[in-house]
Order: sequence, then structure tokens, then C-alpha cells
Amino acid sequence: MKRIKIKIEYNGMLYSGWQVQNEQETIQGKIQDAIFKVFGKRVEICGSGRTDAGVHAYGQIAHFDIDESVPTEKVAYLLNRALPQDINILEAQEVSQDFHARFSAHKKTYLYRIYNQENKLPFLNGQFAWERKKIDEKKMQEAGLLLIGKHNFKAFCSAMAQVTSYEREIFDIKVWREGDYILTEVCGSGFLYNMVRIIVGTLVDYALGLINLDNIKLALETGERNKSGRTMPAGGLYLKNVTY
Amino acid sequence: MKRIKIKIEYNGMLYSGWQVQNEQETIQGKIQDAIFKVFGKRVEICGSGRTDAGVHAYGQIAHFDIDESVPTEKVAYLLNRALPQDINILEAQEVSQDFHARFSAHKKTYLYRIYNQENKLPFLNGQFAWERKKIDEKKMQEAGLLLIGKHNFKAFCSAMAQVTSYEREIFDIKVWREGDYILTEVCGSGFLYNMVRIIVGTLVDYALGLINLDNIKLALETGERNKSGRTMPAGGLYLKNVTY
Repeated sequence: MKRIKIKIEYNGMLYSGWQVQNEQETIQGKIQDAIFKVFGKRVEICGSGRTDAGVHAYGQIAHFDIDESVPTEKVAYLLNRALPQDINILEAQEVSQDFHARFSAHKKTYLYRIYNQENKLPFLNGQFAWERKKIDEKKMQEAGLLLIGKHNFKAFCSAMAQVTSYEREIFDIKVWREGDYILTEVCGSGFLYNMVRIIVGTLVDYALGLINLDNIKLALETGERNKSGRTMPAGGLYLKNVTY
Repeated sequence: MKRIKIKIEYNGMLYSGWQVQNEQETIQGKIQDAIFKVFGKRVEICGSGRTDAGVHAYGQIAHFDIDESVPTEKVAYLLNRALPQDINILEAQEVSQDFHARFSAHKKTYLYRIYNQENKLPFLNGQFAWERKKIDEKKMQEAGLLLIGKHNFKAFCSAMAQVTSYEREIFDIKVWREGDYILTEVCGSGFLYNMVRIIVGTLVDYALGLINLDNIKLALETGERNKSGRTMPAGGLYLKNVTY
């Protein structure tokens, strides 16, 4: 057996997220089906983490174990032939048995994309969130600075999160504008359920004057979800890269 | 009562097409729901024609009748507030009672978008068809010329088409390349079920050397579906405009 690490780009719009769930179309499921089609083996692949329904990736990482006989240098090409147009294996390489896509990950970077203008743009639906009111991205950046560091992020995750600790470390948050688009990059050790979407929603709510900086500080101190901001829609979120 | 004509732009990716069908999410259904939400009236809107599941529009036209009291100049704004991000009413205007979105239409123009390069681009999925083999767009244009004019298009429609006549007139077919994208514009009096997708598929199959010009001539003469080319996927197709 050898261990293969793959880097995957996908458009999550038509999928019920990364993780295999009964009867649902998922990214993990599609890749496992492709491995079966190409190599005739039913294997389980392990991702660096789940992405929710509608969330995208530029650089999700996963690993799986397979026979020595499988030619590593052809894995990406062969799987891509068997995968649909919206899932692309960017690269595949052999790694040592102690590499683990989830447990070996040091850092994850997410990108969140908003288009900020009055008119609806139907063809951006599912790939950008839309905010019609003018957002001052410098205010978003200002609020973002409060969240950098090691904190209890209980107020920044869905009530559905099932974890023993809410402590996570945010290494950096950058917000910038490119024309009508506002981009937010959040880089951290790991993330709770819906955490990036709630972080970005909190920055947007602050920039729009719906909450103030004290709310955000209180959210960190009390862990109360009603102190932080809205949950942004899934379609604007991209897992950009995972560092090992 | 007054008659309102609306021009609609939509991303069809998440819909089961234009036409209301039980339990399915459709563009027509969403617009009718929005009219009900905003004006409190259940009305049926009439489109210039159906678009299939996954097909888009830059300029679909529809009409409906509603109370005099509804302010025409606010219809687009109010409906847009009630519609999702992927359906946009571009304009609304009052028209005379003898205007009919379907029967008054003289000409329809469709655009078909292909991206033609070796690598998968997951984020174009659903908005472009993908062909990895290099296509000579000049050959597509050459084959397209054969189809211009009044013809029996039985070989260029799905077997599911239920019509009394297969005669239609194509006014023009233009094929051009913009970098890795191949665009095909088909303009005609009206179209059969899947007709634009099969026309474009026939041009692609000819350009790739899978069929020859005699096949296409025979397709027109015999009406046999197996003489024409593939049916292109829905996601590359856009109803561009309707002329009255």
C-alpha cells in the first residue's frame, strides 16, 4: 500500500458539501466513485476538513491509501477523466504513511467573496454573496483585527457544532476591495462549524452599523452567539489552501 | 386590468426550467410567487417560450395582466426585492392588450458558450460547455451556413418534441472565438425542443471530424436524428433576446 495526497479544486454549488452522506451528492463521494471507476477499488478518502453544502475549494487536500501498482503520476489525469466538470484534481503525489490530511494540517486559509453593488448579478449567484448597501471595507478590516489571536470562538459558530473546545487561533484576517468586489481572507489553525461565514458576517454587520466593536468584544468574552453578526451564505466561501 | 411586459435575466443553473411544473423550482413559478408576495394577486405569467432545466436568459420576455392600481414604474424594483439573487427583472412596461409574449414574437436569438481548452475549469461549470479537443470555429461557421433558411428541422430536435410542423426558419448563425471561448449565436423565427443545443452539437461534431457536411444535408432532407450531431449540455445556452 502507498499513501496518495491529492489537491482538489471544486465548485460546490451543486453538492451537499464535502462529506459522504447517504443518498446525497458530495465531493468526497464523487472522488471515491472516480477512484473505484478508475482503479476498481473502494477506498475511503480523508479530507483536511469538511466543507458545507455550496462551499467551494481552490485547494482542498485529501489522502487515501491504495495498491503499489497504481501509477501515482497518472492519478490526477485518470481521476479527472472520471470526475464531473466541477471537480478538478490539481495534483497527486505519494506521501509517507505518517501524513494525514486532517491531523497534519497546520494552517487553513479561506477566502470570502462579496459583490457590493445595487444591482443583482444573477450569474454571480452561488459564487459571490451579494450586499446591495455600500460596505466600507476598511471598517471590516478594523473589526477583523479584534478577532486575530487565540480566542474562544463559541459566539462565532453554529449551535450545531459538536466540539469539546471552542478555542481556535486566527493568524490573520485581511479585507480588501477590488472594484465592486470585497474579498476577505481568514487564516487560522482550524475552524468551527460556520466560523468563517459568521466572522465575515460580523465584519459586514459592523461595517453597515448594525453592531459595534463592543458587541464583538463581548461576543469573544461571553461566547454568546447573539453578540456576533449574521452567517454569510455558503456560496461566497472558498477553502483556498491548507498548509502542512 | 392592464398588461405588463417584463424583460428577465436569469441564471437557470438551480432551476427545472422556465415552465411551472408541480413541486419543481422554476423561473415562472418564482416570478408568480413574487407577484403574489408583492401585489397579493395570483396571476399566471406567459413567457415568450420555455427554457429547459439549466438554460439561462439574458432577455426572456413575459407578460401578465394585473389591476390598474399596480404602479408599473415600480414593478421591476418591487419584484426584484421578492425574487432570489439569480432572477433579475431588467425592465417592466405597460403594453396594449394585443401584445402577447409568445404569439407576438418575430425573432429569437440564442447564445451558446463553449470553453475550449484541455483543463477543467470547475467554476465555469453550468455556464459554459467544455470541450477539451481543439475546435476550429471556422469549420463550425462553415457547417452553420447550411442550416440558414427555411428547413424541416426534425433531425435537429429531441424525440420528445410534440409539434405539428417541424418547419422553422433560421435567419442567421454566427460562430466566433474569444480566446479559449467559442461563442455561437443562432437567430430564428422559433425553435423546436433542444434545437439550438443540437444545432451547436452538429457544428461541433463537424469541426471535430465526427460527421461531414453530407450528413448535415441528409439530416435536413430526411429528418433523421441520427444524421445530426450531439445535444450540447443545457448550461451553455442563453436566450439572449426576443424581438417583437
